[in-house]
Amino acid sequence: MSDVKKVVLAYSGGLDTSVILKWLQDTYQCEVVTFTADLGQGEELEPARAKALQFGIKPENIFIDDLREEFVRDFVFPMFRANTVYEGEYLLGTSIARPLIAKRLIEIANQTGADAISHGATGKGNDQVRFELGAYALKPGVKVIAPWREWDLLSREKLLAYAETNGIPIDMKHRNGGSPYSMDANLLHISFEGRHLEDPAAEAEESMWRWTVSPEQAPDAAEYLDVEFAKGDIVALNGVAMSPAQVLTKLNELGGKHGIGRLDLVENRYVGMKSRGCYETPGGTIILKAHRAIESITLDREVAHLKDDLMPRYASMIYNGYWWSPERLALQALIDHTQQTVNGWVRLKLYKGNVIVVGRDSKTDSLFDPTIATFEDDAGAYDQRDAGGFIKLNALRMRIAANLKAKKG
Amino acid sequence: MSDVKKVVLAYSGGLDTSVILKWLQDTYQCEVVTFTADLGQGEELEPARAKALQFGIKPENIFIDDLREEFVRDFVFPMFRANTVYEGEYLLGTSIARPLIAKRLIEIANQTGADAISHGATGKGNDQVRFELGAYALKPGVKVIAPWREWDLLSREKLLAYAETNGIPIDMKHRNGGSPYSMDANLLHISFEGRHLEDPAAEAEESMWRWTVSPEQAPDAAEYLDVEFAKGDIVALNGVAMSPAQVLTKLNELGGKHGIGRLDLVENRYVGMKSRGCYETPGGTIILKAHRAIESITLDREVAHLKDDLMPRYASMIYNGYWWSPERLALQALIDHTQQTVNGWVRLKLYKGNVIVVGRDSKTDSLFDPTIATFEDDAGAYDQRDAGGFIKLNALRMRIAANLKAKKG
Amino acid sequence: MSDVKKVVLAYSGGLDTSVILKWLQDTYQCEVVTFTADLGQGEELEPARAKALQFGIKPENIFIDDLREEFVRDFVFPMFRANTVYEGEYLLGTSIARPLIAKRLIEIANQTGADAISHGATGKGNDQVRFELGAYALKPGVKVIAPWREWDLLSREKLLAYAETNGIPIDMKHRNGGSPYSMDANLLHISFEGRHLEDPAAEAEESMWRWTVSPEQAPDAAEYLDVEFAKGDIVALNGVAMSPAQVLTKLNELGGKHGIGRLDLVENRYVGMKSRGCYETPGGTIILKAHRAIESITLDREVAHLKDDLMPRYASMIYNGYWWSPERLALQALIDHTQQTVNGWVRLKLYKGNVIVVGRDSKTDSLFDPTIATFEDDAGAYDQRDAGGFIKLNALRMRIAANLKAKKG
Amino acid sequence: MSDVKKVVLAYSGGLDTSVILKWLQDTYQCEVVTFTADLGQGEELEPARAKALQFGIKPENIFIDDLREEFVRDFVFPMFRANTVYEGEYLLGTSIARPLIAKRLIEIANQTGADAISHGATGKGNDQVRFELGAYALKPGVKVIAPWREWDLLSREKLLAYAETNGIPIDMKHRNGGSPYSMDANLLHISFEGRHLEDPAAEAEESMWRWTVSPEQAPDAAEYLDVEFAKGDIVALNGVAMSPAQVLTKLNELGGKHGIGRLDLVENRYVGMKSRGCYETPGGTIILKAHRAIESITLDREVAHLKDDLMPRYASMIYNGYWWSPERLALQALIDHTQQTVNGWVRLKLYKGNVIVVGRDSKTDSLFDPTIATFEDDAGAYDQRDAGGFIKLNALRMRIAANLKAKKG
Repeated sequence: MSDVKKVVLAYSGGLDTSVILKWLQDTYQCEVVTFTADLGQGEELEPARAKALQFGIKPENIFIDDLREEFVRDFVFPMFRANTVYEGEYLLGTSIARPLIAKRLIEIANQTGADAISHGATGKGNDQVRFELGAYALKPGVKVIAPWREWDLLSREKLLAYAETNGIPIDMKHRNGGSPYSMDANLLHISFEGRHLEDPAAEAEESMWRWTVSPEQAPDAAEYLDVEFAKGDIVALNGVAMSPAQVLTKLNELGGKHGIGRLDLVENRYVGMKSRGCYETPGGTIILKAHRAIESITLDREVAHLKDDLMPRYASMIYNGYWWSPERLALQALIDHTQQTVNGWVRLKLYKGNVIVVGRDSKTDSLFDPTIATFEDDAGAYDQRDAGGFIKLNALRMRIAANLKAKKG
Repeated sequence: MSDVKKVVLAYSGGLDTSVILKWLQDTYQCEVVTFTADLGQGEELEPARAKALQFGIKPENIFIDDLREEFVRDFVFPMFRANTVYEGEYLLGTSIARPLIAKRLIEIANQTGADAISHGATGKGNDQVRFELGAYALKPGVKVIAPWREWDLLSREKLLAYAETNGIPIDMKHRNGGSPYSMDANLLHISFEGRHLEDPAAEAEESMWRWTVSPEQAPDAAEYLDVEFAKGDIVALNGVAMSPAQVLTKLNELGGKHGIGRLDLVENRYVGMKSRGCYETPGGTIILKAHRAIESITLDREVAHLKDDLMPRYASMIYNGYWWSPERLALQALIDHTQQTVNGWVRLKLYKGNVIVVGRDSKTDSLFDPTIATFEDDAGAYDQRDAGGFIKLNALRMRIAANLKAKKG
Repeated sequence: MSDVKKVVLAYSGGLDTSVILKWLQDTYQCEVVTFTADLGQGEELEPARAKALQFGIKPENIFIDDLREEFVRDFVFPMFRANTVYEGEYLLGTSIARPLIAKRLIEIANQTGADAISHGATGKGNDQVRFELGAYALKPGVKVIAPWREWDLLSREKLLAYAETNGIPIDMKHRNGGSPYSMDANLLHISFEGRHLEDPAAEAEESMWRWTVSPEQAPDAAEYLDVEFAKGDIVALNGVAMSPAQVLTKLNELGGKHGIGRLDLVENRYVGMKSRGCYETPGGTIILKAHRAIESITLDREVAHLKDDLMPRYASMIYNGYWWSPERLALQALIDHTQQTVNGWVRLKLYKGNVIVVGRDSKTDSLFDPTIATFEDDAGAYDQRDAGGFIKLNALRMRIAANLKAKKG
Repeated sequence: MSDVKKVVLAYSGGLDTSVILKWLQDTYQCEVVTFTADLGQGEELEPARAKALQFGIKPENIFIDDLREEFVRDFVFPMFRANTVYEGEYLLGTSIARPLIAKRLIEIANQTGADAISHGATGKGNDQVRFELGAYALKPGVKVIAPWREWDLLSREKLLAYAETNGIPIDMKHRNGGSPYSMDANLLHISFEGRHLEDPAAEAEESMWRWTVSPEQAPDAAEYLDVEFAKGDIVALNGVAMSPAQVLTKLNELGGKHGIGRLDLVENRYVGMKSRGCYETPGGTIILKAHRAIESITLDREVAHLKDDLMPRYASMIYNGYWWSPERLALQALIDHTQQTVNGWVRLKLYKGNVIVVGRDSKTDSLFDPTIATFEDDAGAYDQRDAGGFIKLNALRMRIAANLKAKKG
């Protein structure tokens, strides 16, 4: 294990990654570089710096980055261009953040001359895969240290004992058994797994949810929201132009207020087991609904269907950690190509858990042609007699088959 | 036009199909057989019989069938086994009823020796396609008469004048301009198109909706509902065994009460234009959510993904009118094959437009294995070290590519 | 029919389109513009000019274009980037030429101020669809005149009589019953349909084939051929750089000499019937084989599989006439994106109908890594132990299911 | 390693698996059961029995099975129903045999009370995955011993030394460096990998090929062959009814004689690297061609296209070792459903590497309708005017888009 000289650790400042930091120093006798990212998880990052210094990390080896704009612009928005949903329900809030962290870990490794990276994801989950596939794709010779797959601190008690022994501060909540859930948060969502949720028959406790009020507690009055799209991305809310991260921040606020975006599901992990997770994705839930609505008037039917057919595959690529793969990039080329005309606005009504589309239009790119769609007289824009031939030829192969069947008796 | 001897007309008893009935008698000088189906649209059917008699239809040529059980058992339920949604939103309420009507039209034609069928669908819509593709697939030599594509009664005024001239009773609503919407209803949904909706930017009027209260008007207290599945179909609600039509009727009642299943969208018609429609599908909305939930614990991951990948294609088949096609039957063989293990129950919470899954389980077929998924010690059920090899080999092709790229510089 | 002022006719100079030319003048009383393209069909075009002049076409209304380079560069090559084959066999030689003709018809219509186009394709085939979909996509208001769907000259006799009456010269072969086949040729292929071929059980006559010798008549000595690719397209043969049309011309010569590229099949037409066709595609058959070979070492596995999964759909788009559709353009964006690294060479052996790949390499982009693939000692490039974990996790979902099944007994 | 009591070894009787046999006895101190299968590889099996006895294997622990009929009937034929080809070229000869071996290993383990299985596949290849995924799917708790991933006999020299030390007979060929290729054979194919083939630029040596003559050496006279299908499987050749294994044996003989079925390619392994392989699949190459031909007249277009779209995925399932997975079974349900009407005959011409379809027919299920497809007068079976409407509606969405584009200027 002595072949690692310098390792970049994805460091949150919390108990687990602090134990990992110390364990890396002890086990690998190597220099540690810490990387702490602001992805919109809503936590102070400066305490992470202070802790890192306490562990003897050199100031130049402490990286704290605000990645919120990059996260939404280059990861969240491109994903929503495909109306991406995993297994019919999950908006991929955790999955889409991992490739950005992997990218920064590798960039910092290159910058600091580190030969290894490390993370705090366990050996049972998807996140280890996402971190490491990203890292290997971007720096094929990198050494990955995944302590949860290597060490023997596999129970909570052992971890706490190790912390105690090594003078790592333990929050009161951890002493008391800690949060009952394994959580992950970023600007797109917050997730909950474990403990009470391990029985998929049992209802989640109301107290678990953090970003959204319950539909019951949401305001009794609905709120309208105008969303403006340019090339498939939201660029303004209620007429106010905003940056990507500003858009998502605002949508989270509105969605959270109206009880929007809670999800409780059992999903299939890439590593082979089913897992129950609860998610709050207030802003993302609004984006998905609005994006489908703007596409409904600006995308050609067959292009939309092609996207729909490919979407589950694209979602699996992201879920499974293949963001930096050539197949994801190839699909993205197709998806982005289709968004040139996805311009216009959508009007939504937010009310107690509901995101209701009430109107949509595009001054420049609407393919909705009222002169043709009308039930009224269309002045010859569409010749109804054409439909007869259309049906006849589409039926031909079935008629030939039915004739044959009739002949066979 | 004189080659038609007997025609079976899909007859609702309303103004339009009454005009068609008369027009067929006059234009084709042929015997007319009327077929009126109870698909759960919620209208009395006996008035249709009385009207048909008035037009001189022989009693033995009047067919009035209650098809509700067949509709749900053989059409609605098989469709939901695939979690079928068209263009991400539409639950295909109209589309799925048409093939059953086509089937009965042909059965009656065969039984009465008719050589033609007729329907009241216009030349701009999908329904003409669905009726006729079904008819041709089941009786390849049948003659189809689609009056809206043939006659010159293309404006409301001309239609009313024709009715007046021919002594066809006109309801007051028609005289006053009629219902502002083109509607279709059956046990799965009620749909609205036309008039005010022809501007996709404009919000639908609250007064349009018929089967559901608005979320705002729904009860302030949530209601729990237990749904039991056998082989992918719902067989009991809150512990009470029910027939397919009973299930859907009850779910419509519950969904309607809680403001569930409204939808406002712009869809792509098979005949080539975009069209704005509003739908109320209270029961179907609940079925979809519950079915995905029971599959989440009883279906293998790759089977579920295969179904997800094929679903949009299956939805298009139904939307476009290919229910009786060999490709739909082939896909159904796959879908039904997968449902053998889809047994168990789902607990839902219904509240002001929301259908919230709060629990799910299967005594016989749950693939959720808590000993493996747990965040706690799993007593060796899963070896976390395996994940390292799993990731390494999955990354190999990307590492080779990255090595090459690095070499190229 | 009097609303057409000027029509651009796709004019070959042969009997059928000469009759159409005259018929258009008589029936529509309109000015006719003729367009004759050299797509490599191997016929003199100047006689078409002479004939057009005879019919009174103004010199400035006669367009004769050499489109061979554009055809191969912008249509044939992009198609082969996807390894495109329709229904497992057909290389789409006719299909891929039609959109180019449609494009030129519309360009000429725009240039000459014509309001209509016309072509000689029948109402039973795919070509009418390909011409017209292309035309409508490029000039939505254009009027299309398809004489075969309009006139009453539906038998050979009537056509000849019309020609006789109108002084249209009739070749001796037509008088004698003409070629027994309906043929189409361009630089990619020559096709045969009709007559003897209408019995799919009967073997085609050897005398039918035109561009290739039979394998039996091909040289007894094999010939090696080196093919060089850049970005997925062939740029050199045996070390000699060539333009796209030069490449295909040379490959046709080589393939024809060695009896390569004959095909006899029954295909499914877009208009609904099955049709038997025979094709000679000597150069295209070589391109397909060589392109797959160069991709085998330069494309990532998952990208290659994504392309394979989408290929049949892309092939149907071309076969059905949707070259100018937005969905084809979206797929092309994906396909072209993947070809950046498809650089290198392939060595082929041509022998009596066989195209045999015997070697392939890429100096810049080979993903074949001999240090990893070797059966010999790889010096640690690949850790075989990783495979155990890889298999274990991939098997996990099936083991859980098998455990459940065992428990159920 | 002492927890294994009895292990079933896939035993060929050759050097490698003999070393494994001894190594298992020594390393695991466990009882060994040998399983040797006749899959048509063309080797005597009784020597394997004699060798096993020499190693002290109890007679009742020696299993030698003739699996040829089961192999072709339940594995090869079902696979060809889908026209299965991996990466456009490979007929999956090795892949399709592995699940049968896995099945028998587990059956024998169950019968003999063994708790483990073992095989001689290396840690770099696909076969380990195929054996083990199959084993885990059929017996989830089985222990798998893969010596090549465990032991230190990783070079040829060490293996030979181990054999020498342990009195394991070494053939002269092994002493001389052995066969230059890693080979696998069964009734479907023989494969070659390694050594000279590790340079994908180099042509394979003619002396390598074993089952087929070169096209150059094949007879100068072509041979006709009539192939009869029932439900998608071949049931007779030249009018003689045969069992599945008889069919494939005969086709191998014919194909081999005519130089048919050689293949040289670079493929993508599931474990992540590219690998060059050469294959001889004479009979399989004929089956594929014939099966597509019979489907061309008996399968509906959309069903055929659905199969084509799914085929690459099905091929990957087999290649990657997922034969016993629920997703392969689901796809097979669809595939088999479609084969009910695949009945009839195909006439082929075999000549120097070529398999040429010259005719095909089905008395009972041909969908080729000459009255419709004809270029001659069809007596009204098809109304050419229908095509106009068909095209108009299919073009509508593109016309609307083009209108919009024109408006935007």
